[in-house]
Amino acid sequence: MKKSRWQRWAVLGGLLAVMGAVMVVWRSPLWAAEGMWTFDNPPLQQWKARYDFVPTQAWLNHVRLSSLRFNNGGSGSFVSPHGLVLTNHHIALSELQKLSTAQHNYVQEGFYAPTEAQELKCPGLEVDQLVSMENVTAKVQGAVKPGMSDVQALQARRAEIAAIERQSLKATGLRSDVVTLYDGGEYWLYRYKKYTDIRLVFDPGQQIAFFGGSWDNFTYPRYDLDFAVFRLYEHGKPVDSSADYFHWSRRGAQPGQLVFVSGNPGRTDREDTVAQLKLLRDQIFPLDLASLKSHRAALEHYSAAGPEQAREASEMIFFIDNSIKALTGMEKGLKDPELMALKERQEAAFKARVAANPAWETAYGNAWAQIAQAEKEYAAHLKQLRFRSLEFSPLAEQALTIALYVQQIRKPDADRLPGFHDAQLPSLRFRLLSPAPVYPKMEEALLADTLSESLAELGPNDPFVHAALEGQSPEEAAKHAIQGTQLASVAFRKSLLSGGEAAVAASKDPLIVFVRRLLPFVLQEQKWYDDHVDSIVTAAGQKLGQARFAVYGKSVYPDATFTLRLAYGTVKGYPMNGTIAPPFTTFYGLYDRAYSFGLKHPFNLPQRFLQAKRRLKLSTPYDFVSTCDIIGGNSGSPVINRRGNLVGLIFDGDIESLPGDFVYDEKQNRAVAVDTTAIIEALRHVYHADALANELEGQRANTSP
Amino acid sequence: MKKSRWQRWAVLGGLLAVMGAVMVVWRSPLWAAEGMWTFDNPPLQQWKARYDFVPTQAWLNHVRLSSLRFNNGGSGSFVSPHGLVLTNHHIALSELQKLSTAQHNYVQEGFYAPTEAQELKCPGLEVDQLVSMENVTAKVQGAVKPGMSDVQALQARRAEIAAIERQSLKATGLRSDVVTLYDGGEYWLYRYKKYTDIRLVFDPGQQIAFFGGSWDNFTYPRYDLDFAVFRLYEHGKPVDSSADYFHWSRRGAQPGQLVFVSGNPGRTDREDTVAQLKLLRDQIFPLDLASLKSHRAALEHYSAAGPEQAREASEMIFFIDNSIKALTGMEKGLKDPELMALKERQEAAFKARVAANPAWETAYGNAWAQIAQAEKEYAAHLKQLRFRSLEFSPLAEQALTIALYVQQIRKPDADRLPGFHDAQLPSLRFRLLSPAPVYPKMEEALLADTLSESLAELGPNDPFVHAALEGQSPEEAAKHAIQGTQLASVAFRKSLLSGGEAAVAASKDPLIVFVRRLLPFVLQEQKWYDDHVDSIVTAAGQKLGQARFAVYGKSVYPDATFTLRLAYGTVKGYPMNGTIAPPFTTFYGLYDRAYSFGLKHPFNLPQRFLQAKRRLKLSTPYDFVSTCDIIGGNSGSPVINRRGNLVGLIFDGDIESLPGDFVYDEKQNRAVAVDTTAIIEALRHVYHADALANELEGQRANTSP
Repeated sequence: MKKSRWQRWAVLGGLLAVMGAVMVVWRSPLWAAEGMWTFDNPPLQQWKARYDFVPTQAWLNHVRLSSLRFNNGGSGSFVSPHGLVLTNHHIALSELQKLSTAQHNYVQEGFYAPTEAQELKCPGLEVDQLVSMENVTAKVQGAVKPGMSDVQALQARRAEIAAIERQSLKATGLRSDVVTLYDGGEYWLYRYKKYTDIRLVFDPGQQIAFFGGSWDNFTYPRYDLDFAVFRLYEHGKPVDSSADYFHWSRRGAQPGQLVFVSGNPGRTDREDTVAQLKLLRDQIFPLDLASLKSHRAALEHYSAAGPEQAREASEMIFFIDNSIKALTGMEKGLKDPELMALKERQEAAFKARVAANPAWETAYGNAWAQIAQAEKEYAAHLKQLRFRSLEFSPLAEQALTIALYVQQIRKPDADRLPGFHDAQLPSLRFRLLSPAPVYPKMEEALLADTLSESLAELGPNDPFVHAALEGQSPEEAAKHAIQGTQLASVAFRKSLLSGGEAAVAASKDPLIVFVRRLLPFVLQEQKWYDDHVDSIVTAAGQKLGQARFAVYGKSVYPDATFTLRLAYGTVKGYPMNGTIAPPFTTFYGLYDRAYSFGLKHPFNLPQRFLQAKRRLKLSTPYDFVSTCDIIGGNSGSPVINRRGNLVGLIFDGDIESLPGDFVYDEKQNRAVAVDTTAIIEALRHVYHADALANELEGQRANTSP
Repeated sequence: MKKSRWQRWAVLGGLLAVMGAVMVVWRSPLWAAEGMWTFDNPPLQQWKARYDFVPTQAWLNHVRLSSLRFNNGGSGSFVSPHGLVLTNHHIALSELQKLSTAQHNYVQEGFYAPTEAQELKCPGLEVDQLVSMENVTAKVQGAVKPGMSDVQALQARRAEIAAIERQSLKATGLRSDVVTLYDGGEYWLYRYKKYTDIRLVFDPGQQIAFFGGSWDNFTYPRYDLDFAVFRLYEHGKPVDSSADYFHWSRRGAQPGQLVFVSGNPGRTDREDTVAQLKLLRDQIFPLDLASLKSHRAALEHYSAAGPEQAREASEMIFFIDNSIKALTGMEKGLKDPELMALKERQEAAFKARVAANPAWETAYGNAWAQIAQAEKEYAAHLKQLRFRSLEFSPLAEQALTIALYVQQIRKPDADRLPGFHDAQLPSLRFRLLSPAPVYPKMEEALLADTLSESLAELGPNDPFVHAALEGQSPEEAAKHAIQGTQLASVAFRKSLLSGGEAAVAASKDPLIVFVRRLLPFVLQEQKWYDDHVDSIVTAAGQKLGQARFAVYGKSVYPDATFTLRLAYGTVKGYPMNGTIAPPFTTFYGLYDRAYSFGLKHPFNLPQRFLQAKRRLKLSTPYDFVSTCDIIGGNSGSPVINRRGNLVGLIFDGDIESLPGDFVYDEKQNRAVAVDTTAIIEALRHVYHADALANELEGQRANTSP
C-alpha cells in the first residue's frame, strides 16, 4: 500500500511519520549497525560478533516494556518508577499548543510543575505500551482461499485482520493491532496497554528545544535541548512504572559506546522496487514539493496579517518546512546515481536468486513486472488522485472523515475502508473529537489554497472541481464552506457521529454540505486506487516478501511500520562537508552558534540561558550522534547503553540520513540525540528544576519538591 | 601554458599556488562579487551600483602599496608604520621550520619577540611590494611579425618580454616582471620593491593556527588563529611604512559589510575550454591524485621511524594533504554535471558571438579546435611527461635545476626555458641557495618513491627509467644518488652555480652525476611540451583572449597570475550541508570543537588556551567568511573595509570554493579570514603580547615593550 491519501500528509511529530506502510526490506546481515528490528527477532549474531553483547530475554522484555509510543507520531519511555515519561519537545508540541492560551504560550515560555498538583492534563493524547506480541501469520494467510482474485484475497485478509483485532480487543480490553511485516510475509498481533491521562511536567520552551529552527532541523552538529517530560496517570494517580523504566545514566553517552534505540520508526521504503523509486523520484516527489510550497506560501500570507495569525500558523509552517526539507533530502538520495545503481544491483541480484529456483520463479517471478505495471497506471492517474482531495485543510478533512465514518461503520467490518475497522475506531473517534483549537480563518485560507491547486491542476471541468466550486472562485467556495460551520465545536462533531448517516445527510452546516458533495469522488478515487494500485502492489509486494523470506530468511528486518523496533549502533562522528562531525557537541557550541548569528532568530537564546552562562559547565556534552538506524516516528525514543541505562533521547537524524527512507549508509547516516548530561545540567543550572532532576537521577525520596 | 613540470607541484603556502598560468577569464559583469581584478581596472560600475562605493585613485594606490607578496606563494600587508607585516602562520611555516632546531620548535611552540632586538631573521624569504604598473601590450605583441609560425611567435614574444624585464631591472633596480593577462590580450610590466631582510615577530604556534588540522582545512565553520607577524628591515632598521599601511579596525568585520581582499591569487582556470576541463577531470586529476597518495604513503612510512622523522616529514605531509583535499574538491566540481553543463553553455554562447562576426570568426574561430587537438596529443603523451621527472623529490629537483641553470644562462636570454630569464635569476638563485635544512634520509625515501612510480608507469625499458635506475631497484638508485651528496650544503651549491657548466660536468657528487644522466630527457620532454602543447594552447588561448576582448571588453577580469588583485564582496554566511553557516565564529566555538572531540589531536588546545578560558571574552568574533573571490596565493591577504581599515586576514576558502578554480558561485563560495578582534583578544589575554597588540592598534608610542 503506497499512499492512502489521508495518510500521506500525516506529517506529525516533526518527521514524516506516515503510518501503515507495509513495504519490506532485505539486507545482507553483514551490513553493520543497520536495521529496525522487531523484538521477536533481534540481530543477536551481529551483536555477539561485533560487540560481544548477548542480551537476556529479561533485558529485551524490560526494554520493550519501558518503551512507549505516542499516538501523535512519536516515541517515548518511562524514566522513573512514578510514571515519568521522557519524549521530545516537538512531540509534546501539539499538546503544548492545545494547552496554550492568549495568556500563556507554553510552547515559547516553557513549563515546569515542581509538584504533581501543578502538572497539566493533556487532552487528546494517547500513549501505548507494547505488552504482548503474537504471530498470527497462519491465520491471516489462511483466510485466502485457492482461486481468489488479488482483490478478493486482499479483502479476505482485511476481514481476517479485523476479526482478530476485534476478538482480541473484546477478550483483553487491550488495544489490538495486527501488524503486517515483511510485505505480508508475517502478521503479528500487537497488544498495547493504553494510557490517556497524560500530564505535562516540564517543557524547556521551544526556543532552546528547537534552537536553530528550520535551518538546523535535520542537521548536525546540533544544539537543541529537544525534550519534554510527562507523567502518566491511571485512576487519578501516577502510574507505578517501577517494574519497567529506564534508569538514568549520569555519565551520558560515551564516544565509541554501543547503544540501542527502542522506538517506533514510522515508515521506510527500503524495499521499494526500482520502478517504485523512479516514480517517487520523477513524479511523486516533485508534485508533493510543489504542493507543500504552495501551502507554505498560503500560510505565510495568512501569518502576515498579525502576531496572533502568525502564532496560529506557526505549528503548521514548522511541519511544512520539516516536510520540504525531508522530501528534498529523500529526493536528493533518489537523484544520486550511485544510490539508484546500488538499488538496481540489489534488485538484479535478488531477481537472479529467485529466477535460479524454478519453484520461486513460478510463485514470485512476475511480481516486479506487476508492480511496474501498477505504478505505470498510478503515474497516469496521479494528478487525479492527488488533487481530488482536501488534504492539508485540516477542518475540511475532518468533516470529510466524519461523513465517511458514519457511512463506513454501517458496513460489516470487513468491507470498510482502511482506518475504519472496529479496532481502529476508538483512536479515530478520539482524534475526531479532539478539543484542539480550530482557527477558522486559517482553515479558510488553507482550503482556498487546496481548491486553487485542484482547479489549476485538473481544470474547471473536472467533476470534483466542479462539485467543489459550483462556479465560485476557490476563495469564495472556501469562505462559504468554512464561514458559519460549527465543526470547530467538539459537541457538534459528537452529535454528528452519534447521529450517524441521517444526521450528516440532514445537516445544513455549510462544511458538511460541502464535503457531502465531494464524498462520491473521494470514494471513487479510493476505490480506483485500491483496485488498480493498492491491491496489486500489496499482492505483488507480498510475493516479494515471501520470496525474500525464501531467499534471505529472518536474517533481515522488515520495513518500518510505526511499531516498536530496536536499532543499535555506536556513538560516533562522521565525515561531513569536507571535515568531520564530532560524536557530541557541548554547551560551548550552543553559545557559539547563537553569538555567531548575533543572537538573531532562530539562533536567539532565551533570557534564562544568557543569564545561566557562568553557572553552566560549558564543556558538558549536549547533543550526540550514533549510527543507530532510525527514521521519523523514532522521535522521543530512548537511547540506552548495554546495561539498559538511559544515555540520551533521539530527536532527529542528520541531513545525510534523509535517504535512509530508501537505504541505510553507516558512513554518514546518524541519529541525533540529546545527552542525559545536558538535560540534568540545564534542569539544575538554568531552570532550577532540582526536584525533577532528582527524580530523573533516582533521588526522588531525598528531596521535597 | 598549462603544466610546466616544475611548477605543477609548487604546493606552497598551503594552497595550490601554482604560478605563471596565463589562461583567461570572462564573465558577465552582472555576476556579483566575482572577480580578481587588476588595479588598473577595478569594477567601479559594480561597486557604485551595488554598494554606492566610489574609491579615489589615492585609495586604490594606498591599498596597492600597503599590500605585499610573499615569494613562497602567499600574500601579506603592512599593518604598522614601522614595517610590521601580517600574514598567515601557514605562509610563515617554511620560515618557522627553518628557524627551528632540535631545541626550539617554533612551529609548535610559537614565538614572540617583545622587542625588536629579539626578532628573528628569516633567511630565504622575499617580500615584494608592487610599486608601478605599465601596459606593454603593444611592445610584446609588436614583436610578432607577419608570417611567423606559432612557435616562432611564441619565441619572439618570450624574447621581447625578457628584453623588457632586463631593461627595466637595469634602469630601475626594481624587480621587473612582465605579466601576461587575458591570454595575451594584455601584457603589463609590474615593478616591485623587494624586501629580503625579514624578521619574525610573532607566531601563535601551529596547534591553534591550524586547529582542526587536515580535517578542518579548506572548510568552515572554522576556528583557526592562522596569523603570523613579521617586520621588514632595510639597512638594519625597520622599514618606514608610515605612508602606506593598513590601519587596524578594532571592531573587526561586520556581517553584511562590504569588504575587499588585496592579494595575489595564484592561478585559476576559469577560461579553460571544455576540452581542457575534461582532460583535467578524466586524466590529469586522477593521475595527480594517485601520485600524491603514493608520496604521502612514502612519507608516512618515513615518519613511522621516530619522532624526529615525523617532525621532518610533517610539513610536506601537510602540503600533500592540502593538495589531495584541494584536488579532490576541484575534481568534484568538474564531475558536477551542472558545472560542466554551465561551462558548455558559456562556451557555446561565446563561440556563437564569435561566429556571428565574420572577421572574428576568421581570426579566432579555429582556436577551440586547435586547443582540443593539442589537448588530445597532450593526453596521449601525459604519462611520459609526468613520469620522466623528479618532481616531489625536493633535493633531486634542486640538483636538476642547478644543472639546468648553468646550461641555460649561457644562452641568449630569449632562448632560455621559462624560469631562467635574467629577470628571474635573482629569485631563482635565492631559492637554490636557501639554507633551509635538508633531511637526506627523507630525500632518499621521496626519490625512491618517485622512481618507483616512474618504473611502474613507464616500464623498465623507458629510456628515462633506464638512465635513472641503471639496472638497480628504485631504492638502490635513490640511495646511491642521495648518500654522500654534498648538495645539502649551501656552499657546495654556490660553488656549482659559480663554477658553471664545467663544474657541473666535472662533479663527482652522486646526485649531480644522477641528474646529469636525466637532463637530456627532461629537456626533451620540455621541448615536446613546448612544441606540441604549450605553444599551440598559448597561441590559441591568445586568440580566445583577443576574441573575448573583442566580445566582452575589459568588463571582465583576467585569470589569476600570482600578481596583485582586488576582490570584493560582503561578510556573509551561506547555506551549507542542509543548514546555514554563520558569517563569523566565536571563541566559544573553538572550545566547543575542542571538547567535542575530547581534546584529541588535531582538536587539542595548547595549554595556554586551556588556561586563558576564563580571561577571554568568548563571544569575540574569531574567523569570518565573505563572498570575496579568492584562491590559493591569496593566503595572508588583508581584508579591508571601505575606509581601507583592516578587519581580517584571509587564510583559506570553504570546501565549496574549491571548484572556484573553474567557476565562481556566490551562493556558497566563501573566503575564510581571521577577524582582527580575535588577534587582539588572543594577543592580550592568551599571549600577554600587549606591546604587539598596542602597535597593531596604533598605540605603539604609549607603551614600552
